Amino acid sequence: MRVRNKPWADDLIAENPAAIVTNPAKYRGHWQDRFKQSQPLQVEIGTGKGQFLIGMAKAHPEINFVGIELQKSVLAAALKTSLPEELTNLQWVLADGDGVETFFEPGEVTQLYLNFSDPWPKTRHEKRRLTYKTFLASYQAILQKDGKIQFKTDNRHLFEYSLMSMTAFGMRLMEVSLDLHTDIEASEGQLENIETEYEQKFAAKGQPIYRLVAEMPPRSE
Amino acid sequence: MRVRNKPWADDLIAENPAAIVTNPAKYRGHWQDRFKQSQPLQVEIGTGKGQFLIGMAKAHPEINFVGIELQKSVLAAALKTSLPEELTNLQWVLADGDGVETFFEPGEVTQLYLNFSDPWPKTRHEKRRLTYKTFLASYQAILQKDGKIQFKTDNRHLFEYSLMSMTAFGMRLMEVSLDLHTDIEASEGQLENIETEYEQKFAAKGQPIYRLVAEMPPRSE
Repeated sequence: MRVRNKPWADDLIAENPAAIVTNPAKYRGHWQDRFKQSQPLQVEIGTGKGQFLIGMAKAHPEINFVGIELQKSVLAAALKTSLPEELTNLQWVLADGDGVETFFEPGEVTQLYLNFSDPWPKTRHEKRRLTYKTFLASYQAILQKDGKIQFKTDNRHLFEYSLMSMTAFGMRLMEVSLDLHTDIEASEGQLENIETEYEQKFAAKGQPIYRLVAEMPPRSE
Repeated sequence: MRVRNKPWADDLIAENPAAIVTNPAKYRGHWQDRFKQSQPLQVEIGTGKGQFLIGMAKAHPEINFVGIELQKSVLAAALKTSLPEELTNLQWVLADGDGVETFFEPGEVTQLYLNFSDPWPKTRHEKRRLTYKTFLASYQAILQKDGKIQFKTDNRHLFEYSLMSMTAFGMRLMEVSLDLHTDIEASEGQLENIETEYEQKFAAKGQPIYRLVAEMPPRSE
């Protein structure tokens, strides 16, 4: 998502060092120190304005969450929204998700979230898709044994690509929905889904949202 | 598909022993003898009235095809349609697909087709779905190394289930389309699809057809 640079973003980030990190490699292996209590750590890559992760942090006080976003003014908006909530299980990271294996130690993360990431539809841009094999390898490097990725998108071709890329990597699919919002309605509260900003707008048009949860194969060490 | 028993079916089958087999275990390891020439062998389980496999046999003279169907009058209809075509690369088998590992030797089959098989939506009927793990094990028992399954359905939940069941079995997805007919139109002839009877009727309603090709993991011997 591209938005105009907001002059207040730098100030807000500088004023809230307890909620947002700009040098994530510094906390590699020590993320639990940044939370009120030690508990499973889940990470969203490309957290945008944070609606999903703020919702998750409220719904799951038993989990610590880290949201990574590259665009400063977008993440500053997430920070602005989260501050009044005083969530002690949520941290923001201003950084390129490309570097996650330098941010976290092997096994430090229990689950990853990828929500509505850029589909990069052109074949020559395949390497930029967040489910390309080099990204999967970096996720594997930080996830615990049996660690999972939850991936959500409205883009059919990105979803199809991701199914192939993930299974080629040895991942197995634990959950798949090819029409998440229909399934949620039918589940009568059994199926959890925190919506992203984008998802809310998009699902209103009645087009399907795709979601999967896939488990990493063990690292060969 | 349930149809009334047709009295001509027994006669037609008895009169055409060169085209249809009722004792498939007899040919285990020797299927190539039943064809004009030795070439890769592909099998459809639940071949119905045969439109798909007749189309495949015409489009691919370089492949030998076997279509298995349990219901006599349905398969007799397939036989009736195929006879005038004089296809030397097509054989029908009247039998329960449940027994495939007794019909073919390990490695004798290069590819399997499952088209619009019964979704068995109730959880207690999971074991009857043709992509349940025990069926996958029987397919693995007859497929060559790197053998593939092509699976096509209009049933979203069966497709989702199959993605999970197949990847839990260690299969990897080589091709996935969540809207096959749209993809075929867009491919301008690059993507091949022989339609089944059911698919023709169903796709006319504009609902999506799902298709995947998945590769078997090697047998551990």
